[in-house]
Amino acid sequence: MSKLLTDLIEALRCLPGVGGKSAQRMAFHLLERDRERGLRLSQVLGQAMRDIGNCSRCRNFSETPVCTLCASSSRDRQVLCVVESPTELAAIEQATGYRGQYFVLLGRLSPLDGLGPQELGLDLLADRLAEGEIEEMIIATNPTVEGEATAHYLAQLARAAGVRPTRLAHGVPLGGELEYVDRGTLAHAFGSRQALD
Amino acid sequence: MSKLLTDLIEALRCLPGVGGKSAQRMAFHLLERDRERGLRLSQVLGQAMRDIGNCSRCRNFSETPVCTLCASSSRDRQVLCVVESPTELAAIEQATGYRGQYFVLLGRLSPLDGLGPQELGLDLLADRLAEGEIEEMIIATNPTVEGEATAHYLAQLARAAGVRPTRLAHGVPLGGELEYVDRGTLAHAFGSRQALD
Repeated sequence: MSKLLTDLIEALRCLPGVGGKSAQRMAFHLLERDRERGLRLSQVLGQAMRDIGNCSRCRNFSETPVCTLCASSSRDRQVLCVVESPTELAAIEQATGYRGQYFVLLGRLSPLDGLGPQELGLDLLADRLAEGEIEEMIIATNPTVEGEATAHYLAQLARAAGVRPTRLAHGVPLGGELEYVDRGTLAHAFGSRQALD
Repeated sequence: MSKLLTDLIEALRCLPGVGGKSAQRMAFHLLERDRERGLRLSQVLGQAMRDIGNCSRCRNFSETPVCTLCASSSRDRQVLCVVESPTELAAIEQATGYRGQYFVLLGRLSPLDGLGPQELGLDLLADRLAEGEIEEMIIATNPTVEGEATAHYLAQLARAAGVRPTRLAHGVPLGGELEYVDRGTLAHAFGSRQALD
């Protein structure tokens, strides 16, 4: 196999979930049938890797200093949702009808990994809360040990600024069967049972 | 989501087996964790799409006028294996200990799609056979209707040049269970049963 083709197959393996076999299939597919879109991918990918930075206001991915979401006048400025990463922001945008703004931590509190309040941009977040516009801060960190610790810290930050902190509800997933729900979740859901009216 | 990010996700969908969800996961993965390899993929991909052409001797993918396989002095020049596409060449190289040379048709005879002897480079193949070095031509086209028609045509070409044509054996796949082998294959395997000595 030619050097360049071997290099291409190797390079494609940087994609998550793509092993040697799929990488080879992708390389041959593009070469045999889709060079134009392959070239386009090469261009867009290079541009994205170079030009996509972080919004100076919410830290989400953005190629402009302030992202479209922060710049939008149609988003509710009284609610702020804090997430760990852009992936989670995208998931919330796609699944919910949330119309407020976001703040992306780009991580979670993890002193052992060198991730403290500064790395998570919490000074930026504090400034944002101090602006006085925000009334509710929805804490949407992941329900992991570190995510919960981060949520706890964030809640204190919100209260200090006179902002009401809220947290995503935990419980049995919709469509899930109790039998297959893990113990921790089931215990939590049981303890947090809600009155039906 | 930013324009460039949306473009990247859309562009990644040119890869076979990658839908919207995987494309998004790939884009976020590269942006969050692997920009360097993302940039490298962009470069190699662009270079491959632009520079990989076809070997003037065997028509396999190559960024040089004559591919390494054709240029190699360690390959047997008396056997030529004819395949439909570079993918199949790669499969044979990886699975077998074949040490001869190749010829890639880049298609199969299919007059309705405008693929005739000329498009498959059969004049080039005829020249090759006329050189007189080749003794056996292994016809490894796919066992489809069009592949079989192509094989038939190729066999005539070989015989006309005094070259012995051979064809890959058809039959029950190794490790396959007779119960699950399709009828056509089973009938063929039954009819072509071989003596045990």
